[in-house]
Amino acid sequence: MRILLVNPNMTQAMTDTMTDIARGLAGDRAEIVPLTATTGFPYIASRAEAQVAGGIALGMIAEHIAGVDAVVIAAFGDPGLTAAREVFDVPVVGMAEAAVLTAAMLGERLSIVTFSPVMTRWYADCVRATGLGARFAGVRTPDAHGGDVANAAQNMRAELVTLARRAVSEDGADVVILGGAPLAGLAPEVAGEIPAVVIDPIAAAVAQAMTLASLRLRLEGRACKPVAKESVGLPPALSRVIAHEAAV
Amino acid sequence: MRILLVNPNMTQAMTDTMTDIARGLAGDRAEIVPLTATTGFPYIASRAEAQVAGGIALGMIAEHIAGVDAVVIAAFGDPGLTAAREVFDVPVVGMAEAAVLTAAMLGERLSIVTFSPVMTRWYADCVRATGLGARFAGVRTPDAHGGDVANAAQNMRAELVTLARRAVSEDGADVVILGGAPLAGLAPEVAGEIPAVVIDPIAAAVAQAMTLASLRLRLEGRACKPVAKESVGLPPALSRVIAHEAAV
Amino acid sequence: MRILLVNPNMTQAMTDTMTDIARGLAGDRAEIVPLTATTGFPYIASRAEAQVAGGIALGMIAEHIAGVDAVVIAAFGDPGLTAAREVFDVPVVGMAEAAVLTAAMLGERLSIVTFSPVMTRWYADCVRATGLGARFAGVRTPDAHGGDVANAAQNMRAELVTLARRAVSEDGADVVILGGAPLAGLAPEVAGEIPAVVIDPIAAAVAQAMTLASLRLRLEGRACKPVAKESVGLPPALSRVIAHEAAV
Amino acid sequence: MRILLVNPNMTQAMTDTMTDIARGLAGDRAEIVPLTATTGFPYIASRAEAQVAGGIALGMIAEHIAGVDAVVIAAFGDPGLTAAREVFDVPVVGMAEAAVLTAAMLGERLSIVTFSPVMTRWYADCVRATGLGARFAGVRTPDAHGGDVANAAQNMRAELVTLARRAVSEDGADVVILGGAPLAGLAPEVAGEIPAVVIDPIAAAVAQAMTLASLRLRLEGRACKPVAKESVGLPPALSRVIAHEAAV
Amino acid sequence: MRILLVNPNMTQAMTDTMTDIARGLAGDRAEIVPLTATTGFPYIASRAEAQVAGGIALGMIAEHIAGVDAVVIAAFGDPGLTAAREVFDVPVVGMAEAAVLTAAMLGERLSIVTFSPVMTRWYADCVRATGLGARFAGVRTPDAHGGDVANAAQNMRAELVTLARRAVSEDGADVVILGGAPLAGLAPEVAGEIPAVVIDPIAAAVAQAMTLASLRLRLEGRACKPVAKESVGLPPALSRVIAHEAAV
Amino acid sequence: MRILLVNPNMTQAMTDTMTDIARGLAGDRAEIVPLTATTGFPYIASRAEAQVAGGIALGMIAEHIAGVDAVVIAAFGDPGLTAAREVFDVPVVGMAEAAVLTAAMLGERLSIVTFSPVMTRWYADCVRATGLGARFAGVRTPDAHGGDVANAAQNMRAELVTLARRAVSEDGADVVILGGAPLAGLAPEVAGEIPAVVIDPIAAAVAQAMTLASLRLRLEGRACKPVAKESVGLPPALSRVIAHEAAV
Repeated sequence: MRILLVNPNMTQAMTDTMTDIARGLAGDRAEIVPLTATTGFPYIASRAEAQVAGGIALGMIAEHIAGVDAVVIAAFGDPGLTAAREVFDVPVVGMAEAAVLTAAMLGERLSIVTFSPVMTRWYADCVRATGLGARFAGVRTPDAHGGDVANAAQNMRAELVTLARRAVSEDGADVVILGGAPLAGLAPEVAGEIPAVVIDPIAAAVAQAMTLASLRLRLEGRACKPVAKESVGLPPALSRVIAHEAAV
Repeated sequence: MRILLVNPNMTQAMTDTMTDIARGLAGDRAEIVPLTATTGFPYIASRAEAQVAGGIALGMIAEHIAGVDAVVIAAFGDPGLTAAREVFDVPVVGMAEAAVLTAAMLGERLSIVTFSPVMTRWYADCVRATGLGARFAGVRTPDAHGGDVANAAQNMRAELVTLARRAVSEDGADVVILGGAPLAGLAPEVAGEIPAVVIDPIAAAVAQAMTLASLRLRLEGRACKPVAKESVGLPPALSRVIAHEAAV
Repeated sequence: MRILLVNPNMTQAMTDTMTDIARGLAGDRAEIVPLTATTGFPYIASRAEAQVAGGIALGMIAEHIAGVDAVVIAAFGDPGLTAAREVFDVPVVGMAEAAVLTAAMLGERLSIVTFSPVMTRWYADCVRATGLGARFAGVRTPDAHGGDVANAAQNMRAELVTLARRAVSEDGADVVILGGAPLAGLAPEVAGEIPAVVIDPIAAAVAQAMTLASLRLRLEGRACKPVAKESVGLPPALSRVIAHEAAV
Repeated sequence: MRILLVNPNMTQAMTDTMTDIARGLAGDRAEIVPLTATTGFPYIASRAEAQVAGGIALGMIAEHIAGVDAVVIAAFGDPGLTAAREVFDVPVVGMAEAAVLTAAMLGERLSIVTFSPVMTRWYADCVRATGLGARFAGVRTPDAHGGDVANAAQNMRAELVTLARRAVSEDGADVVILGGAPLAGLAPEVAGEIPAVVIDPIAAAVAQAMTLASLRLRLEGRACKPVAKESVGLPPALSRVIAHEAAV
Repeated sequence: MRILLVNPNMTQAMTDTMTDIARGLAGDRAEIVPLTATTGFPYIASRAEAQVAGGIALGMIAEHIAGVDAVVIAAFGDPGLTAAREVFDVPVVGMAEAAVLTAAMLGERLSIVTFSPVMTRWYADCVRATGLGARFAGVRTPDAHGGDVANAAQNMRAELVTLARRAVSEDGADVVILGGAPLAGLAPEVAGEIPAVVIDPIAAAVAQAMTLASLRLRLEGRACKPVAKESVGLPPALSRVIAHEAAV
Repeated sequence: MRILLVNPNMTQAMTDTMTDIARGLAGDRAEIVPLTATTGFPYIASRAEAQVAGGIALGMIAEHIAGVDAVVIAAFGDPGLTAAREVFDVPVVGMAEAAVLTAAMLGERLSIVTFSPVMTRWYADCVRATGLGARFAGVRTPDAHGGDVANAAQNMRAELVTLARRAVSEDGADVVILGGAPLAGLAPEVAGEIPAVVIDPIAAAVAQAMTLASLRLRLEGRACKPVAKESVGLPPALSRVIAHEAAV
């Protein structure tokens, strides 16, 4: 099977790290096709950025959808997820949503730990958007926004473990999600130091994309799909998808 | 005061109708500055279209923000609302949100009546996004999607009144919102035939925009604003706003 | 237009302060007609007091309703609001409700800061009554109930600012309501010291009353109105309203 | 023990019927002391009427509280309940609340069946006020408001049974509450015709009042009690209670 | 009347204490028939243990149901409650549920105080299962699990009072439940030291069982009852109940 | 990897069908180890039966846990799921929960269609237990309970398709779950006739079990695990697990 791993951020190094994790998990079950945004933002961290980047993600998916069995939107916060699910006839998975729903099968109360307080509001929104707000024990972050996001996983390792331990002991979490692309790959390294199940969102998302693809579900003909619509100024591939002219 | 009325749809006739209503309400209290999208869709009707059109709306606002006291996003469904509120330091009002919150001061249970079942999911989402889902009695629409959206207000007048009356008698609504830009202006015409308060969303939105502007609130310096961010490929005015380079 | 500003507390000085704010906001848009209760309590601070004072408010409104375009119940806690909305055919606005719904158009999470822990339960109830409990970040107050309620705005200014800053940094609020009539007028003074939008409830309520009146909605004929009822021992004007004998 | 049965309606015949049921249930466990309102309304059926009648109920309780072990507010809709609970140091029980909480120990989903659509909104409010809205399957009533409220139990018997059966088969209720004082005593008569547990609210309320009194709980000294307050124009006994001058 | 007091724990001393309280409360109104589990666990403290013990409780009830008017499941956490309610045609009451619903008639926000953090998740589950999660202010416990559960009420008295006082002052509780069978009987001893209503769950449960029995409700013929079913390996009495062969 | 497929029903034919589906999905990724209950019920259909069967499932898992990478509880309704998750240190998946969470990644509103109204309450409970009640559009079933459960998939095929189509058109579902073991395998056959995504719970559950196992999460050392406990009368393997004596 063929999985599109769409990074709506412009940072190639993040795509590379996530692709490595995805390929390690997929083995020979799936071909991972990574894409990195060429417009937009180096690292999405707000609703305004997600509004724009979600549209960019739609265009990236539309252009590469041929022959694809499932799509991963590889940014925690899931820009464009609901929109993509509406128009493409393959499963589309978001990192935050997949991590949260996977967590819901492993425990009762989930927390997110991440590297910056800047992300708190957006990440909390993502959990509530799944409908699982009642099982959410909150986001734990350092007090201040540090500069070196790219190396957060290594530079902040000890602090992140401490935050995760407090999520367990003070907030009652039994599953902890290490959220945000810069922390990709950290979960298995620190799991032994945290008395809860620890989830790596990119691993969860890629695993769920393969799972949904393996179920060979029929997504064509859904009553909920938008009617065909003309458009102006969109990327040509996306314009064709929305006009129901493209094979999706 | 100066109110930006941003229509993220490309249909100029809708903008014209809404501008007339806005000016009738504003009198000499406010100058209404209408804008119509020149890219995107003739009439937004899905989450995918709203994802793209919300980004377009951000660009339109950014280009015309100088000297503006409040912004109305003049499409029921509020594309780009949360994002715009985050980055601009003036009040930003959405048609759906303003109609719903206005309704909440006039009754206990609100319904939306609109011209097509295609809009149901998206409109219901808008109500839930406000947090007032528990006071929502649902969306009532004709069974099928008709062709002539532009003239829905006149062609479907009797059917819309019947739907509104059923929203009252069967769903328990005491406030009815006539949702969707094609129905702008219909509410005062039919209010006498419906045993509930009937709201015109564009009127509610323009009135709320003037209200918020009149309160002379301080929006600069909010802790919730995103940090400055570089970007590639965005409309220049929006790029500057997001980089904190523009006066907003 | 003519706005009735009904203070169900017996403290004339509060009415005077709120009337000044209302008139400053209304300019020549509206005539503000203030009323102060002559029975009941100097300052309502509990559900039991609100039960009694709400009935008193109904009587005050009934006696002065002729020619009125909208009513403000000028006590945070909104005694009698739901009841008044049911029987009078003009918009009725409460200070707490109007502040909360206005806040909901300016941010995502709202907090209330007030001068005494005695108010906490009642104020929290008011937010939940709007249906927006999920967007409520709590009430912050000093630890103890101080004696000089009348001068709380000036005597406790620094402490209230500190509480509001904690509502932002610890509770995640992006809008702060300074609740309680004794704090009327404080919001614009301290807004620059608080990294969130700061709302003065009396300003929000008067602005919303004028907004609703300006929409020229039809409230007569609502299906939700109580049937005519005889009564014994009520203020004559209220008795006539409830018997459907009075023009309202 | 001594139970105050406070009817905030002015209809003596209702008080008599409810007193008979209460005494039948109490046997020699408790003395039932009935009170009927002498001001207010013959039969409360709206929020506005409940606002006024709740204040009347407070005065009635205050005047007769000496030596009382628990209070029943004997009107479905519970006017004044929260207020009374706040100021009196004995258990106070409402007919609607007691019926709903009793129902919650007998099944999973509860419905209310009553004699008039006029009551629907108010009764639904009562259920939601308990916090058990998620277990509420709705109110079922005849389509129109009939004239002869006093004899509803006998005249409408067959229709009420049909409504209750539909609450079970269509709404999924496993407990049905026959709401409204005119239906007092009907539940045991029709229980055999309805495939669910059928509750008589006055029986539930009196039973719960005796239950709470039997637990010999300490209500004095609660931190949630309002501070002492002066008042003007209240019934003297109530004024003393609110001023903390009366023994309660 | 005859009340079955079923302790699904194997600790006879707990049964004895609870039986004493039950008999003190029942006086000559009811005969209390205590049962103690002879298989299972000394003291249930987890969902896994409750899964097993709930099945054991069903068997105990089935064997002794003849002539019984109501059943108390005498373990906080209510193992088997929903299942028992489904199959037996007499009221079945759980200690946690009865305490929570009784609390809901005495105040607005309830907390649970117990002797060990091990119970927190399970007890919180019990409150949410009633549907009253929105009125729940949380569980307060000592930081660590102590060894001597049997004597917790006396050994930890001071600490439990402190926890209860913090539940009031910090969590806003106005009713405190002392949860867990080892604390049976403590509530009346400490009520004077806690500024809230303090509830003893076994007293609440026994009182509610007698209350429900006194209402002489008809539970036979409920549409929600499971259809008759054959089984293998169950205690014979339970097998007959589930096969609809036994008189229940 | 090794997946335990535990059927807590006693019907071998169901186990065989589900094992075939599981093996078809697993291919050479996983060994499927099926177990069928030898005590309990032929087909679990109520809470009381689930209470007993959940305990039986715990014993079955405990006896066969050695070398297992994940467990599927192969009964819609998930008897014993929460309990099993608490005590075993491998992922445990339930058919209902897995179907619901999988559905949540494929659409916005999910419905369950099943073969008998007898299951409605229990299945609805399962959805709410996941926390996703707000995205639940209800259970659709035939009006009456038919006799031939074993052949429901073939005998009721047309009726089930009609019910699913109504779940889409009337309830707004965009994902439909065909619930209950007798319908295993039907989903792919009828998907083309239903304008929504159609899910087979056993396929979803087995796919999720393999997914969770593939993530190689660390479940040992979770703070939420119960403390070691002695027991009497349990299956020996389960007794050792609960006493922390067994390797799990």
